[in-house]
Amino acid sequence: MIIKDEIHGNIEFTELEKGIIDTEEFQRLRRIKQLAMTNLVYPSATHTRFEHAIGTLHLSSLICEKLGINGEEKEKIRLYALLHDIGHVAFSHETEKILSNVMGSHEFIGAKKITDTEIADVIGAQYEPEEIIEISKKPFGQIVSSDIGSDRMDYLQRDAHNTGVAYGIIDIDRIIHTVFFEDGILGIKNSGLEAAESLLIGRFLMFSTVYMHPTVRIASAMLQSALLFAIDSGDIQPEEVLNLSDDEVLMRLISSRNENAGIMGRRLIKRDLMKVAYSFELSPETEEKIEELELAAAETAPETILDMPVQISKPVSIMVKTENEMKKLDELSELVNSLKYAEEKRKKVLVLCNRENREDVSRISKEIMQEE
Amino acid sequence: MIIKDEIHGNIEFTELEKGIIDTEEFQRLRRIKQLAMTNLVYPSATHTRFEHAIGTLHLSSLICEKLGINGEEKEKIRLYALLHDIGHVAFSHETEKILSNVMGSHEFIGAKKITDTEIADVIGAQYEPEEIIEISKKPFGQIVSSDIGSDRMDYLQRDAHNTGVAYGIIDIDRIIHTVFFEDGILGIKNSGLEAAESLLIGRFLMFSTVYMHPTVRIASAMLQSALLFAIDSGDIQPEEVLNLSDDEVLMRLISSRNENAGIMGRRLIKRDLMKVAYSFELSPETEEKIEELELAAAETAPETILDMPVQISKPVSIMVKTENEMKKLDELSELVNSLKYAEEKRKKVLVLCNRENREDVSRISKEIMQEE
Amino acid sequence: MIIKDEIHGNIEFTELEKGIIDTEEFQRLRRIKQLAMTNLVYPSATHTRFEHAIGTLHLSSLICEKLGINGEEKEKIRLYALLHDIGHVAFSHETEKILSNVMGSHEFIGAKKITDTEIADVIGAQYEPEEIIEISKKPFGQIVSSDIGSDRMDYLQRDAHNTGVAYGIIDIDRIIHTVFFEDGILGIKNSGLEAAESLLIGRFLMFSTVYMHPTVRIASAMLQSALLFAIDSGDIQPEEVLNLSDDEVLMRLISSRNENAGIMGRRLIKRDLMKVAYSFELSPETEEKIEELELAAAETAPETILDMPVQISKPVSIMVKTENEMKKLDELSELVNSLKYAEEKRKKVLVLCNRENREDVSRISKEIMQEE
Amino acid sequence: MIIKDEIHGNIEFTELEKGIIDTEEFQRLRRIKQLAMTNLVYPSATHTRFEHAIGTLHLSSLICEKLGINGEEKEKIRLYALLHDIGHVAFSHETEKILSNVMGSHEFIGAKKITDTEIADVIGAQYEPEEIIEISKKPFGQIVSSDIGSDRMDYLQRDAHNTGVAYGIIDIDRIIHTVFFEDGILGIKNSGLEAAESLLIGRFLMFSTVYMHPTVRIASAMLQSALLFAIDSGDIQPEEVLNLSDDEVLMRLISSRNENAGIMGRRLIKRDLMKVAYSFELSPETEEKIEELELAAAETAPETILDMPVQISKPVSIMVKTENEMKKLDELSELVNSLKYAEEKRKKVLVLCNRENREDVSRISKEIMQEE
Repeated sequence: MIIKDEIHGNIEFTELEKGIIDTEEFQRLRRIKQLAMTNLVYPSATHTRFEHAIGTLHLSSLICEKLGINGEEKEKIRLYALLHDIGHVAFSHETEKILSNVMGSHEFIGAKKITDTEIADVIGAQYEPEEIIEISKKPFGQIVSSDIGSDRMDYLQRDAHNTGVAYGIIDIDRIIHTVFFEDGILGIKNSGLEAAESLLIGRFLMFSTVYMHPTVRIASAMLQSALLFAIDSGDIQPEEVLNLSDDEVLMRLISSRNENAGIMGRRLIKRDLMKVAYSFELSPETEEKIEELELAAAETAPETILDMPVQISKPVSIMVKTENEMKKLDELSELVNSLKYAEEKRKKVLVLCNRENREDVSRISKEIMQEE
Repeated sequence: MIIKDEIHGNIEFTELEKGIIDTEEFQRLRRIKQLAMTNLVYPSATHTRFEHAIGTLHLSSLICEKLGINGEEKEKIRLYALLHDIGHVAFSHETEKILSNVMGSHEFIGAKKITDTEIADVIGAQYEPEEIIEISKKPFGQIVSSDIGSDRMDYLQRDAHNTGVAYGIIDIDRIIHTVFFEDGILGIKNSGLEAAESLLIGRFLMFSTVYMHPTVRIASAMLQSALLFAIDSGDIQPEEVLNLSDDEVLMRLISSRNENAGIMGRRLIKRDLMKVAYSFELSPETEEKIEELELAAAETAPETILDMPVQISKPVSIMVKTENEMKKLDELSELVNSLKYAEEKRKKVLVLCNRENREDVSRISKEIMQEE
Repeated sequence: MIIKDEIHGNIEFTELEKGIIDTEEFQRLRRIKQLAMTNLVYPSATHTRFEHAIGTLHLSSLICEKLGINGEEKEKIRLYALLHDIGHVAFSHETEKILSNVMGSHEFIGAKKITDTEIADVIGAQYEPEEIIEISKKPFGQIVSSDIGSDRMDYLQRDAHNTGVAYGIIDIDRIIHTVFFEDGILGIKNSGLEAAESLLIGRFLMFSTVYMHPTVRIASAMLQSALLFAIDSGDIQPEEVLNLSDDEVLMRLISSRNENAGIMGRRLIKRDLMKVAYSFELSPETEEKIEELELAAAETAPETILDMPVQISKPVSIMVKTENEMKKLDELSELVNSLKYAEEKRKKVLVLCNRENREDVSRISKEIMQEE
Repeated sequence: MIIKDEIHGNIEFTELEKGIIDTEEFQRLRRIKQLAMTNLVYPSATHTRFEHAIGTLHLSSLICEKLGINGEEKEKIRLYALLHDIGHVAFSHETEKILSNVMGSHEFIGAKKITDTEIADVIGAQYEPEEIIEISKKPFGQIVSSDIGSDRMDYLQRDAHNTGVAYGIIDIDRIIHTVFFEDGILGIKNSGLEAAESLLIGRFLMFSTVYMHPTVRIASAMLQSALLFAIDSGDIQPEEVLNLSDDEVLMRLISSRNENAGIMGRRLIKRDLMKVAYSFELSPETEEKIEELELAAAETAPETILDMPVQISKPVSIMVKTENEMKKLDELSELVNSLKYAEEKRKKVLVLCNRENREDVSRISKEIMQEE
């Protein structure tokens, strides 16, 4: 089977892979957008996790070929790549925040889908489903999941292509040409230094213009709020979320008997979004005042939401092999180092409220946050 | 307001246009895919009518600038372009076939949406809504709707970009540089002959590899069949369709009380598609046997569908201005002429049935269609 | 060694191939433009035979991989691809017309360069130079030289990219995915039909907008005329041409002691080109009058040149494998068939003269050619 | 007149501009590569100053339109853009180093070409040639020559496209959409911050992978050395250089009676390049030892060249307009700030010598530079 992808062109699949793609579980990914509500800002960003999954398989395969990994090993890595996001549900980012304690992380859900659904049967013809999941914990898992892995390379390029932002920035071709695998570490040769930098620059630009775009954050915050209302009121059961598509979630919200969930849902459908009344950098100093700000703002405008910036847990870590030694990329590259600071600087807390309360909330926020 | 589009880059809008885009009616287009079920074959084809509408406005504007059309005239043409597809509902192609007698064509629906919804209020601040609709009947309507109009140029390029098929084939830049408007006719100068050809070649290639792709036709036929069951059984009211999104339609089908609608809907969700048992060109000779074929096939496999090729009503008509005269493009270009024949040749009737009956239906079809 | 190419990205070479690229003979290709004087019309068309040679190697290699050709066989095909144009001299097209009787065709020259220069020594470390030349006569030679071979695919795509014309039209990826090799024939599977068509469409568009562009033909005719003067007067020796670059040829012309060669050369440098006074299709009828036209025009304007259209000797021939049989592409595709006619229609004889005589020559031409 | 450019598509010219392009002076730019010897590393980098000049005109025009600059003002800016590099001679970078004291900077030469050649006559039909030159000193000159000007935007994008490196990185569309002109300053609005960053990132990546590529620096150093020999020996007269093309300079070198010039020239033609024996960062500490190193290396390998990194004179300076104030981009962007440091870090002194002396020179260099 061949699928034509807008990014990588024709991608070939084995019979087994075709079997997995044909399952209902996998087809579900067609109805889950890679970038959730981002299309409210970049209308072309309608690409799905389905596309990303097959693109990740493709890039993983190219890395395997470069590293000389063949046969069963390669096949299992391809399968892992294909299934690495199978645990993602609609609006993963928002639902995980709310539901991860109930239903587990998307990795946990993914593992269960691989072992407990028809996907297990398909894989079972050739491998133990567990063998595929285990790749994630083995050194070869880096081919998919590390900072120079296929997952990141595919989604950055795909998101760039579909938003129209900074497309072509990442020199994937070159990265794949310069990867090495040694002592259990997937890294990049010195000759690929600029290509690795291009990846992190691409990531930074996507981060600051797309992933952290204020309007995207607003829509995301509103969605999370609506979901909370709907789940708390029992209108949506946590386990249901596992099988809903993006649009089904939205429709469940707008038809919710919970008034708040309904209103928020309808506003999202109409793109009637909340506004940023104020924003500030997170620091020990500002953090202290957050509670006071929340209370004061809620009094003026009960709908106020303080949207916290994403905390990226793991710092980027790419090993570079120079003539004599291995070094971390951020030790070698001033540029990469500074991207970290630049990224931190752009992480702001947003104070959101309805249009009609914007002025008041803005004034109150200034009073509290700017006082000596 | 500026929107970043994956095809045309940054597109600017006036306050009035922003007002229209912000209506619920217009936002609805975000949830209607330009190519309906085509993403079952080309997974990246998830672009929407929303994007196409803003792209059409953009190209219309460029043509106006080239022709020296300014001020109110240009503004109205932009508005018409923005709204030219507002009457499209989910799965327009299929629903129109079934419901056009009840709810009218998409042009009719569109006109009503422009005059009877909040869109009318927004336009009303500056123009009569009817003024916008009338553009379609005036010579300047060709800027949007003719064979070298913005509508076609945008969707061909956008569909190519999103399927990964033959992207870049159409020299839009050149077409816009060589358009002229004279005596009520929008045409192209002789120096744009090859560019006009490129448009028709692009159209032909998209037609034969995407729009008429057998699997796309199968999904479309199954959807139409499911819709018919659901509407006939009263499970979906025709007028409801006006406001549903693609995904809502699919969900209504899978939860339909009508068993046939439900089964078909679920099969579409799972991408468990019917198969082509036989295909043949439409000719006076073959047309005679169609009824016999339908009866015989239905006896063996009651689910059998005979999917007829699209009948493109209007032949392409582009005027080219040479030194001394105006000529039709197909008189000047052997190539364009032959594309017509080539297109006809590829229009086939498909006999569809379930996988398990494929062999039988194939045999019966051959017996009937190939007998002397 | 890796070379970064603007079309194919990173291309890898073996030590042996690097050795060949490093020879003076091969480096010479850096100074020979792929499209000769075409940059006078499309200024970006400055790409060279060097780039084309490495691109052809790259695509040949991809076809080999698809066909499962490995080891020495593949290595020899790569070498043949790399060297397939080594016999090209500056302005091959024009010089071959004049000098082929003296110095042989570019294939003949190429063979001699492979066996008699330092290239032979480099190849000799592993193969007999003759083994490489022989590939051209063997079935596998089609991988490089047939209508779906790497040579054509590379130059069409490269020329399109560098002129800015119709880039992306050719679906190379798909062609390579659908080639087969059977009974000594390299062909394309039925599933690649549209891709093969895309190749011929691309070829047609490049042909009619670039290769046959009147101004390109004018520059080419002037160059040929200047070369003839310089060689006839002994100012350039035929065998010298083998080692000159494009710019060296031009400089030899402008410093020629032959006045006519000098004038023509300087005019080319200044882009002071002749004009088209008249043009007509070649037919048995018009052919009869050519001599008369030449005489009459020469009397009015002695510089007059009748530039004949290129006669493409071999018709396109691509084999397509359907379920049961092999067919020629032009039997299967109305489109391809009609491209042939369209191409013929565009082949015109151009009557060229200096600007100041244009009117007179135009009048005389009309009188002769349009009389009953 | 319309010219099709590989980067910007169709570009239109006025009659006056066409007149300038048709002069011999301007046509000369067709034979001067934008990136000099860079094609020895990136073979596709054969684009010329001719293309860059017309691209710069095009982008300047777009900026004018955005700023509402029309009529004569715009025409003069277009002319200035078209002619901004007319003073560049073959291998400007190298020849300026050697000859600028004799023939002046390329700006000085350019001004003379505008006032003293046929270009003056063409301009004279409408403007005083001096009026065009003066633009460079006026505020509107920033449209072409500032850090967000058309010159830089065009060459970065063009160089990226033709090397295949990091293409698409720069969001030109967005930069043009967000420029402003106020109080004599051309700057960028806050909403274009990321776009401005993209420009500087693109510049950094081109700088470190292309412009400062060691092999490019080697070829450049060899060329400069050969030129020095040829000029010192009187074989090339400084004023001749003004009218030679790239290839003419190379041919003059290889046919020079000065042995050293001849050898170096032939080595460049054959791509038989010197090697890097050692490299080090420039610092007060290392600078002290340079003389000692030069002497010691010259004793071992008289051909040794110490190639100094380019000293970029002016730091980047882009003004950004936020809600209340104007700020320098590097005050607003950590990223831009750090690019400066990263760039400095990559500037190294290269110690070059012939292959056979590499080991010795390397050893000596280490001894001298690494001693305590």
